[in-house]
Amino acid sequence: MSAPVLAPGATIGILGGGQLGRMLCLAAARLGLRCHVFSDASGPAFDVAAQTTVAPFDDAAALRAFGRSVDVATIEFENVPAAALARVAEVARVYPPLRAVQVSQDRLAEKEFVAELGIAVAPFCRIDSASDIEAGLAATGLPALLKTRHLGYDGKGQVLIGRTDAACEAWQGVGQVPSLLEGFVDFTMEVSVLVVRSPRGEMVFYDPSQNRHENGILAETRVPAPLAPATREAACDIARRIAQGLDYVGVLAVEMFLCGRPHERQSLLVNEIAPRVHNSGHWTIDACLVSQFENHIRAIAGWPLGSTARHSDAVMTNLIGDDVARWHELAAVPDLAVHIYGKREARPGRKMGHVTRLLPRSD
Amino acid sequence: MSAPVLAPGATIGILGGGQLGRMLCLAAARLGLRCHVFSDASGPAFDVAAQTTVAPFDDAAALRAFGRSVDVATIEFENVPAAALARVAEVARVYPPLRAVQVSQDRLAEKEFVAELGIAVAPFCRIDSASDIEAGLAATGLPALLKTRHLGYDGKGQVLIGRTDAACEAWQGVGQVPSLLEGFVDFTMEVSVLVVRSPRGEMVFYDPSQNRHENGILAETRVPAPLAPATREAACDIARRIAQGLDYVGVLAVEMFLCGRPHERQSLLVNEIAPRVHNSGHWTIDACLVSQFENHIRAIAGWPLGSTARHSDAVMTNLIGDDVARWHELAAVPDLAVHIYGKREARPGRKMGHVTRLLPRSD
Repeated sequence: MSAPVLAPGATIGILGGGQLGRMLCLAAARLGLRCHVFSDASGPAFDVAAQTTVAPFDDAAALRAFGRSVDVATIEFENVPAAALARVAEVARVYPPLRAVQVSQDRLAEKEFVAELGIAVAPFCRIDSASDIEAGLAATGLPALLKTRHLGYDGKGQVLIGRTDAACEAWQGVGQVPSLLEGFVDFTMEVSVLVVRSPRGEMVFYDPSQNRHENGILAETRVPAPLAPATREAACDIARRIAQGLDYVGVLAVEMFLCGRPHERQSLLVNEIAPRVHNSGHWTIDACLVSQFENHIRAIAGWPLGSTARHSDAVMTNLIGDDVARWHELAAVPDLAVHIYGKREARPGRKMGHVTRLLPRSD
Repeated sequence: MSAPVLAPGATIGILGGGQLGRMLCLAAARLGLRCHVFSDASGPAFDVAAQTTVAPFDDAAALRAFGRSVDVATIEFENVPAAALARVAEVARVYPPLRAVQVSQDRLAEKEFVAELGIAVAPFCRIDSASDIEAGLAATGLPALLKTRHLGYDGKGQVLIGRTDAACEAWQGVGQVPSLLEGFVDFTMEVSVLVVRSPRGEMVFYDPSQNRHENGILAETRVPAPLAPATREAACDIARRIAQGLDYVGVLAVEMFLCGRPHERQSLLVNEIAPRVHNSGHWTIDACLVSQFENHIRAIAGWPLGSTARHSDAVMTNLIGDDVARWHELAAVPDLAVHIYGKREARPGRKMGHVTRLLPRSD
């Protein structure tokens, strides 16, 4: 069955009401498409949605009513309960496909899936008890990261293990839940690639970006990432194989580690994937004619994919917590695009907005 | 009294619910500002507004409630009844200032105001009866345009007079209402300048654009307009004097005629002004870091004005009436940004969307 093409006036359903949903709504509006946002609480997306529903993610009736009111549904955070997504999928087309979301909700399944495609990942093993950790460390070496299999993002649900005798403490640290032990990768650069895939299997790629995290949260993204042409191509090829393997539709983010110094043999390891628009693609709003948000909407609506060409270089910096208090000063800086998400309270570690500096193209 | 600076989370009131209001809502959302749209009928802006009111423009109670719910109010079409605006101004700050709107609502007052600033306009005279026309033609020459003083836009309320004995017919044509007779200008180019002025009197200018009208409706805008540097400066200076003269706040569009062939002495005449964001500035969404819409919001919210620098050349083409049926084909063209306004019915002459083609900077 070929996917329908949604004409202007059609309605996009979005599960989740955060800033990614907000930016999806803004992108859909450019194309004459309406958005219906479903979330368990009001959030940044609600101010720009044509229609909103507040209901728990286990409210089957509300989910079905939502599904019936939209022409296609999508997600803006990957931890939407898979059961909620399945409920919507009973009455509506849902992109990305349920399987892609399920795989990325389980760090173990995700690693196994990527590794089975023949793509390099850090050494890993499954952890179901404290005793698994000691055995696992033999495989991964030290240091290693213990990560919960479920509900992790922005560095949450992760503990670094530096010594073999810290296994027990780490097991307490992640809350004694099913986890994954991962060898610590000594990378030279964090890179991400955003691929957009249409229901017809067409794919376009944004230029790989260089990312810098602080305290597990993305702090800064730069494009272009300073990669050799062959490495850039290898990064896009990895994203292509993952998107194809998942029969993906929409924007998929693939975070990778680049290992090895320049002038040495360099290699890419996949760190994680996100089945949604991604913080490391916010620069596309200001540096590309068609942003990641618009291309996600185009893909799920069956439209031709838009150009990912970059007219400028860009440096995107997140405004975390109190950073947003500097909005007035930042708004006065020339060549800086200011994006504020409209969240009421600036809690520590909370993404409140971002700024993008444009620079003339260097390549 | 200095104007307040509205922090993210504040509410912008917009009178009018059309596509300009829609694009203002999208720009405000980037900055974390909410919008409350007031109009006498639902329209394109309603799908992206945090709050909406549908009420007649003479509903004093509704206007006051709207005014009390916002931190600043603005307009998205210049024919908002001045009385409605005055009602809102009783309880809220309103930008642009009432006088600027009143002046631009009366083509005679507008011409007189511009002429009094010492800025060239076409020869004109006031027409209150058919007999005024014959006398007027002696001053303006033939051909001439008879234009209603009020409620004209997109070529509406205008009749071209080619012969003296057509006066009576023309008077019928405009509906026998207070009018203006204007000498026909044999121009070589239509140009517009968008100026943004803050409550503190700071001004920034977008590059002058070259406009082409068809049937009185803007068909295409190109930037940069092919103007000699001195002419470009003169065009901006005209806009500056008008904005200053009106003590303007927000985006003001000034449409001009360039007369005289290249390599001759060239001069600029002001054709009309619009106290709002303008169709000839839609290219700024895709070719500038800060669009006319965002700069209007920044100005009325007391924010620092944003950069008007242009990173690319641009050609903006309106989608009028059935043009919008080509949306799918247009969406497949690389380097073309597609904007659809979400209007339900594509009536002839109705602006349904626009496309902007980006080109590398030529200057």
